[in-house]
Amino acid sequence: MPAVMIPRSDYQHLVRVPTRWMDNDIYGHLNNVIYYAMFDTAINTYLITEGGLDIVAGAVIGVVVESQCQFMQSVAFPDVLEIGLRVGRLGTASVRYELAIFRHDAPHAAAVGYFVHVFVDRGNRRSVPIPAHLRSALERLQTASDHP
Amino acid sequence: MPAVMIPRSDYQHLVRVPTRWMDNDIYGHLNNVIYYAMFDTAINTYLITEGGLDIVAGAVIGVVVESQCQFMQSVAFPDVLEIGLRVGRLGTASVRYELAIFRHDAPHAAAVGYFVHVFVDRGNRRSVPIPAHLRSALERLQTASDHP
Amino acid sequence: MPAVMIPRSDYQHLVRVPTRWMDNDIYGHLNNVIYYAMFDTAINTYLITEGGLDIVAGAVIGVVVESQCQFMQSVAFPDVLEIGLRVGRLGTASVRYELAIFRHDAPHAAAVGYFVHVFVDRGNRRSVPIPAHLRSALERLQTASDHP
Amino acid sequence: MPAVMIPRSDYQHLVRVPTRWMDNDIYGHLNNVIYYAMFDTAINTYLITEGGLDIVAGAVIGVVVESQCQFMQSVAFPDVLEIGLRVGRLGTASVRYELAIFRHDAPHAAAVGYFVHVFVDRGNRRSVPIPAHLRSALERLQTASDHP
Repeated sequence: MPAVMIPRSDYQHLVRVPTRWMDNDIYGHLNNVIYYAMFDTAINTYLITEGGLDIVAGAVIGVVVESQCQFMQSVAFPDVLEIGLRVGRLGTASVRYELAIFRHDAPHAAAVGYFVHVFVDRGNRRSVPIPAHLRSALERLQTASDHP
Repeated sequence: MPAVMIPRSDYQHLVRVPTRWMDNDIYGHLNNVIYYAMFDTAINTYLITEGGLDIVAGAVIGVVVESQCQFMQSVAFPDVLEIGLRVGRLGTASVRYELAIFRHDAPHAAAVGYFVHVFVDRGNRRSVPIPAHLRSALERLQTASDHP
Repeated sequence: MPAVMIPRSDYQHLVRVPTRWMDNDIYGHLNNVIYYAMFDTAINTYLITEGGLDIVAGAVIGVVVESQCQFMQSVAFPDVLEIGLRVGRLGTASVRYELAIFRHDAPHAAAVGYFVHVFVDRGNRRSVPIPAHLRSALERLQTASDHP
Repeated sequence: MPAVMIPRSDYQHLVRVPTRWMDNDIYGHLNNVIYYAMFDTAINTYLITEGGLDIVAGAVIGVVVESQCQFMQSVAFPDVLEIGLRVGRLGTASVRYELAIFRHDAPHAAAVGYFVHVFVDRGNRRSVPIPAHLRSALERLQTASDHP
């Protein structure tokens, strides 16, 4: 397990998410699968509230093409978590999010990962350019070093 | 679907729980199963923080013997929910919780239900009297009409 | 916990469903919430394969208005389960399913419950008569005693 | 999305897993999170049945330190899936599994990924050598090219 110490300040945006009883597995800590549910939730909450994504009827939706997570420390229900979110590479039709999971009272990340969305037409599922309003929201999550 | 209008004030205790992306099903609203995950989470959070339940190593655990839910209105991610919790019948080894689910901005419940815990020995899973500290926490959630 | 012994032969239709690692909770058995996921899966699999329900684009969908479960014995991953399904009351727009969960190697049910669907128009969510093909499939799951 | 065509024959071991109603998300396909639940289930089912892993009381448990998935094609409930499993690197205390997800009727993988377990002492969570019986089971999943 990596010895890297990743602080909250590495992330532009933080979303507070409580754990649920059923998130714990038989080993008494959060099931690894749930970390991805946290990533998904942080990203889509941001896209909806800041980028105007309409998950019910919008013409453009984001589909996941790749995700990854490194697990460094256990967290467990009833911990409250904070999900850190920033944007790495922002392409014409795709975006790579970089994420981390923090226990609410811990200075360093318990897990880090990434998640790649390709935006597609809801009907034919072909990739389309990211709509302007959404792109603008994503640009606000880019770190300085990612800007040209 | 019942026309009953159930207000927050019917519940002693309210727990705020955000929804997650994956809670929505193909019909665009919270999957019925998730309501029970909300009940479970509200109850166990209370038992841990107020009643001293030790889910990792305590000698006594609560196991569910019955649950039920009536679904009156749809809720959907990214709604934030409030779970109302009170105690109905409180027996020697068992307790019946009464619950409701509210959208954060709605005056009346979207769903109501109940959940029955029997407390058992962690090892042999035989029922045991509810420990005093836990019982005291449960009594605080009883409604006036349930008191003798 | 009820002493009733419910055999597989009480159910018209049986669906085999393996458990998953994350179904187990911290107490080492299937989380109560998962039983409802099993009910949901057995019912919808039947409606799709036998009743022609089109969950992606059909004009009529089934929404849950009530569900209940009694938990009599623990089951746990990696158990394989069989879900028993029959139809109780079959109304114009609604149906009450009766279900049970069996460990694959156990003669009697570990849990029993019910689940009520109201069929509605996908667009306006108003109740509609159950389409003929679907009704016919549901009638095949009625027990003799439910027939007039 | 990669154009690679990955056949079942790339995997030593295949586990058949049906999908569940609640696995579908609002976009009508399997939520990305569920793929990891499939990985987890295929791996642990193998470890329990072939390697003698005792998830309830064994002294050694496997904890996930990293996982990744690439999503190439959609799958959806009620699809039945097959999870392909093989072992890549097998170290003293850790193992890297390589996995793929196939629709039961499709020749090529819909998703591919990996999953790294470190085996630890259940009590203190420090890494320990993989027990002999478990190691033997893992060796049987190694591909020819991974053998020295």
